[in-house]
Amino acid sequence: VITREQIISHLKKVIDPEIGLDIVELGMVRDVRVDENTVSLSIALTVKGCPLSATIEGDIHRILKTELGIESVSVSMTSMTREELNGVTEKLQRLRAEQKVPGRAAGMSSGIDKLDRKGIRTVIAVMSGKGGVGKSFVASLLATHLRQEGHEVGLLDADITGPSIAKMFGLRAKPSADENGVIPAQTDLGIKVISMNLLLDSPETPVIWRGPIINGVIRQLFNDVQWGELHYLIVDLPPGTGDAPLTVFQSLPVDGVVIVSTPQDLAFMIVAKAINMAKQLKVPILGIVENMSYVKCPHCGKTIHLYHDSGTQEKALSHGVDFLGCIPFDPTISDLADHGRIEGYTSSEAKELVRAMRTKVASVVQMTSATPIVWSREKSQTK
Amino acid sequence: VITREQIISHLKKVIDPEIGLDIVELGMVRDVRVDENTVSLSIALTVKGCPLSATIEGDIHRILKTELGIESVSVSMTSMTREELNGVTEKLQRLRAEQKVPGRAAGMSSGIDKLDRKGIRTVIAVMSGKGGVGKSFVASLLATHLRQEGHEVGLLDADITGPSIAKMFGLRAKPSADENGVIPAQTDLGIKVISMNLLLDSPETPVIWRGPIINGVIRQLFNDVQWGELHYLIVDLPPGTGDAPLTVFQSLPVDGVVIVSTPQDLAFMIVAKAINMAKQLKVPILGIVENMSYVKCPHCGKTIHLYHDSGTQEKALSHGVDFLGCIPFDPTISDLADHGRIEGYTSSEAKELVRAMRTKVASVVQMTSATPIVWSREKSQTK
Repeated sequence: VITREQIISHLKKVIDPEIGLDIVELGMVRDVRVDENTVSLSIALTVKGCPLSATIEGDIHRILKTELGIESVSVSMTSMTREELNGVTEKLQRLRAEQKVPGRAAGMSSGIDKLDRKGIRTVIAVMSGKGGVGKSFVASLLATHLRQEGHEVGLLDADITGPSIAKMFGLRAKPSADENGVIPAQTDLGIKVISMNLLLDSPETPVIWRGPIINGVIRQLFNDVQWGELHYLIVDLPPGTGDAPLTVFQSLPVDGVVIVSTPQDLAFMIVAKAINMAKQLKVPILGIVENMSYVKCPHCGKTIHLYHDSGTQEKALSHGVDFLGCIPFDPTISDLADHGRIEGYTSSEAKELVRAMRTKVASVVQMTSATPIVWSREKSQTK
Repeated sequence: VITREQIISHLKKVIDPEIGLDIVELGMVRDVRVDENTVSLSIALTVKGCPLSATIEGDIHRILKTELGIESVSVSMTSMTREELNGVTEKLQRLRAEQKVPGRAAGMSSGIDKLDRKGIRTVIAVMSGKGGVGKSFVASLLATHLRQEGHEVGLLDADITGPSIAKMFGLRAKPSADENGVIPAQTDLGIKVISMNLLLDSPETPVIWRGPIINGVIRQLFNDVQWGELHYLIVDLPPGTGDAPLTVFQSLPVDGVVIVSTPQDLAFMIVAKAINMAKQLKVPILGIVENMSYVKCPHCGKTIHLYHDSGTQEKALSHGVDFLGCIPFDPTISDLADHGRIEGYTSSEAKELVRAMRTKVASVVQMTSATPIVWSREKSQTK
């Protein structure tokens, strides 16, 4: 006869992929019931609807069935209360002080000049090499959807000479600053944003700076801004493989990079340069997004391929990189971007893309601070 | 009674807009016949079908009618023979040695670090600020159409980290070099091309260089390449207003810049930065091209506006810049570009655009070397 204690003992093998500790220690396992060859239990997630819940559930099934021979396993998912989350945070801070929590993944040394990540758990760069493929749009999509899931999200526009982010979110006011640094702008959803255009007197003022100055500014936008505690900081990179991406990869604690392409051979040739740059600098590539895959004719409803189909998915695989998904060209997007309402864009393709990216982050990147931040979703709902 | 001599004396007021000398001195005036109040004459152009012939013809009509009161003026256009052109060239070289030919326009000092233009008459940069709006495509269009008109044309891909030009023209072979410098690649039509991708072992190799190195390379691509005698060198700039365009504007003898935009507010905001940069650096702006204006549905034939219509033409005017024309989004373009056959693209819009740009060049830029180059159109036809 299998006991409740045996079940719990085996559940210690199930690791929360985001935090890196087992689900028993994290206090996530609830209501374990054993009835001969049937086990039911519930798991309290640190964030409701966490896309990683499927991973946890799969691991539970696998371990209980193969290792203990249990025939029927039933897992229900709930989420922790604010108080329980605070308890987890305290516990993790204590464990961390005792060095029991995994820190930065081995091999990812912090580098001579690497800036401290402070309260930022995950830094994701959006890159392409090629211009005009929709990097800023993909960065905005990631930020918006992660925020809607309840995460604390920041968005750093590292395109100093061609910054799009502020306009897309309708942000205009110059950020203020105090003795602790610059206070980022906030979008309607509560995404913290910093962009060169917020700091200029006019959005049409050109920034005619050579590389070394641009590099210093990018470091400042990361280091001198009061990001606070963030689950994700999305960094929108300019085109090319020159100064700006090099500075971001060398100076910022980037955990992974999302590559954006369009379905055109010519575009992918340049995108491949970005892939190879990330590989050379040993920045994990989370995957490739294909943007502007097709457009639907508003008159006849048929699909028009804007580009000669180039098989981005196969090309991604041939470069050993995951394919995260396609986003169609939608005139709504540029309309929303022109009117500063990009947060209003949702599509099933975008949701699927963010889910794929988020799952990939958890598998590629070993989480750094391992401290669950108290989610502000409720806060922003009650304000 | 008006004499033939009076007519010729007044025709000395008509200046060839490309060379900057009067048409009588250039030996362009032929077969002058005066019959009371009717004058007929023919003009031998230095290049057949020169788009500036309309300007010359208009000036002749204006001067003879308003200043001499002639009622009917009939002008026919022919072109000079190779021998006549050689004669003009010798004459201009002699005049130039005697300092009688206008050199660089006043106010456009050569600058401390400006490279010598050697045999290149006109340097036109194609810029946007924004990525992915079709700079390389517009640069290719200009080069192709100018070449088809019979000019000697070079194309310098100054996008070092994201070079598209070589692939668009189907060029792969590494350029050779001798003691006089690098020998540029040549397209089917005979356009001389240099691009970073021709110098790399693989087109997917990233060029991970900081600004100062990129600047040095751009100067070399201009200075250490055997361009020979060119009517036009088209320089394709990378996105942004940083190192590369700054180097091109400060180091290369740029005569004018063509700005490329798409019909999107967001794009134009970044494009305006490029406009303002060119103004600050006192580089004449030839005008703005709107690319990807619309797409025709291949299923129902109706026009689809890919972007919320943003009135690029009005915006150009509000920035005091000419609007050169629109180019529709055409899936043929990316197909041709992907297959290295961009020279095969022709459209009425493109022809109109090149004509507008070329006329504008003549009015904005005072021609520098003033030496008509012997046209190679015949040569390439007889090879």
